[in-house]
Amino acid sequence: VWLRFVQATVEERLRKLFEKKEAQAGMMHPALPALVDTIRDLTMRGGKRLRPALLVAGFHSIAPDQDLDAVLDAAVAAELLQTFLLIHDDWMDQDETRRGRPSVHVMLSAKYGGIHTGASAAILAGNLAAAYAWEALTSAAFPAEMVRLAVHAFWEMEEQVAFGQFLDIVGSSAVETVHVLKSASYSVRGPLRVGALLGGGVESQLEALDRYAWPLGNAFQLRDDLLGTFGDPEETGKPVGNDLRAGRRTALVVDALEAKDDIDLSILVSSLGNPDTTPEEATAVARLLEDCGSRRRVEAALQECVDQALQALDSAPLDPHGVILLRALAERIAIRSR
Amino acid sequence: VWLRFVQATVEERLRKLFEKKEAQAGMMHPALPALVDTIRDLTMRGGKRLRPALLVAGFHSIAPDQDLDAVLDAAVAAELLQTFLLIHDDWMDQDETRRGRPSVHVMLSAKYGGIHTGASAAILAGNLAAAYAWEALTSAAFPAEMVRLAVHAFWEMEEQVAFGQFLDIVGSSAVETVHVLKSASYSVRGPLRVGALLGGGVESQLEALDRYAWPLGNAFQLRDDLLGTFGDPEETGKPVGNDLRAGRRTALVVDALEAKDDIDLSILVSSLGNPDTTPEEATAVARLLEDCGSRRRVEAALQECVDQALQALDSAPLDPHGVILLRALAERIAIRSR
Repeated sequence: VWLRFVQATVEERLRKLFEKKEAQAGMMHPALPALVDTIRDLTMRGGKRLRPALLVAGFHSIAPDQDLDAVLDAAVAAELLQTFLLIHDDWMDQDETRRGRPSVHVMLSAKYGGIHTGASAAILAGNLAAAYAWEALTSAAFPAEMVRLAVHAFWEMEEQVAFGQFLDIVGSSAVETVHVLKSASYSVRGPLRVGALLGGGVESQLEALDRYAWPLGNAFQLRDDLLGTFGDPEETGKPVGNDLRAGRRTALVVDALEAKDDIDLSILVSSLGNPDTTPEEATAVARLLEDCGSRRRVEAALQECVDQALQALDSAPLDPHGVILLRALAERIAIRSR
Repeated sequence: VWLRFVQATVEERLRKLFEKKEAQAGMMHPALPALVDTIRDLTMRGGKRLRPALLVAGFHSIAPDQDLDAVLDAAVAAELLQTFLLIHDDWMDQDETRRGRPSVHVMLSAKYGGIHTGASAAILAGNLAAAYAWEALTSAAFPAEMVRLAVHAFWEMEEQVAFGQFLDIVGSSAVETVHVLKSASYSVRGPLRVGALLGGGVESQLEALDRYAWPLGNAFQLRDDLLGTFGDPEETGKPVGNDLRAGRRTALVVDALEAKDDIDLSILVSSLGNPDTTPEEATAVARLLEDCGSRRRVEAALQECVDQALQALDSAPLDPHGVILLRALAERIAIRSR
């Protein structure tokens, strides 16, 4: 119920923000609302709103007596940051689909009749979303000193995610470092920390939240990896075999390649990073990853991460009701189907 | 002398910042300092440091008795914002040269052996520079309330420049709107305003600075247009005919096309936006723009803008010494050769 309340409120505030931004952009030049509209389109397609929820839960676990109105404004920033990163990443990874519809660079390339123009406009749409994220974060009604601390956590996320994505695109084999920098940082730890700092969190509280956030961020990534191979495309909004064709070294792939079993991995090796891999081949790879035990081992690792995150909440110097929200979010992140 | 002091101090602080960032990045992963290094490389190639100087002058014109140490830290942010935008714009405009050397996406494409990987890494380098700009701005030793106001001006710049560049790449004919959003905003008005807000500027002071900033921003753009056609490539760091080949509708081009003279514009029309335009043809176009009076008219318009900016400083509610700096900067922006 609480999660649905946060989701609905964040959606409503995003909707209002885009309405205001489109009106303002139209006053500058009639061609500009179209750019704002691409950000709105992607953002309002859905998404899980887990980052805003983590931000609000982080706040509430520190400042349980404070009204949520201001922190819900700041939570919008976490969603806009996500929009910024999805737009840029989809272009870098040449992913044509996001949340079940064409990704932003694909839409803009069609609209402006050119791949480079579309890609450039998409990068700008991402940059604009980042500017809006900064606006949302720094305009929320908090004492300036707290905003300043939260801002510190915010640019730190931007820095880490740029590093993580960089290692990813240059094909670094440091899969775990990439996960820490790319997913754990901005999917879990960052939003939580921003919320906690806005709530006036002290060092012992921030440390407790970190002990919860890092393993949960890892669980988040492992769930993404599992969904990329075994998820329902209708729910994930990503075509079957997307990760495979893109050559992503997911936890499943790494596990299978490292397992010294006598299983024939040739279909995995030939499909990985091959843009011509068919849905049938992708399904065969999924079966292989199941048969060789990789799915089971990754699911076990995921559960271990979640347990670790939950244990970190025992006797943490946080508000008990906030802890209930954090526990619920951990389960939500672990079992989600998209 | 003052300008050289600001330039030297900003250079020194940039150097230290990059040193620290490269060391930190290296601790995360050995491949990461290379990304920081591309930002450092482009930033330290030179550049005029006019934006940091405007930021410091804006501050000093409001708070003449305050030490410059903190504002010089914030001024670094204006230069990092510029680095971010140059990296992205050069890729969007497919400009291969910047400050006399290969632009960032060209360097990274060579380094990682692929155009798309290089472009992606360049976008990430830009995003990283933006994160560093936010860090520099929000870490400077000012009361949090002032930082919050300056932050507002900062994301406003990011928003406007994204809009301006968007209009530019989709080939909008609204040349003046593009200039206001792209150049006037982040080259002159924005840095000045950030400095003024950090100094505690009140509304009447901010308005006075705006009356100086908008025409000066226009002058800045006109000087850029003139340098793009008549400048010395050794000084501008841009090859002859760069703007022409890119099809930029500079003030010179717009003037020539609008002038109802009996002059044969065919060489201009055939060279504009033609990637095969030779340096000889570019020189012929430059001669044409001189002969048809466009150069004279654009130079006159530039001078008028500068006069307007200078007049706005008469009886402005600003510190007299700050006004001297602002006057010197206006002259510097108007007469610069790069």
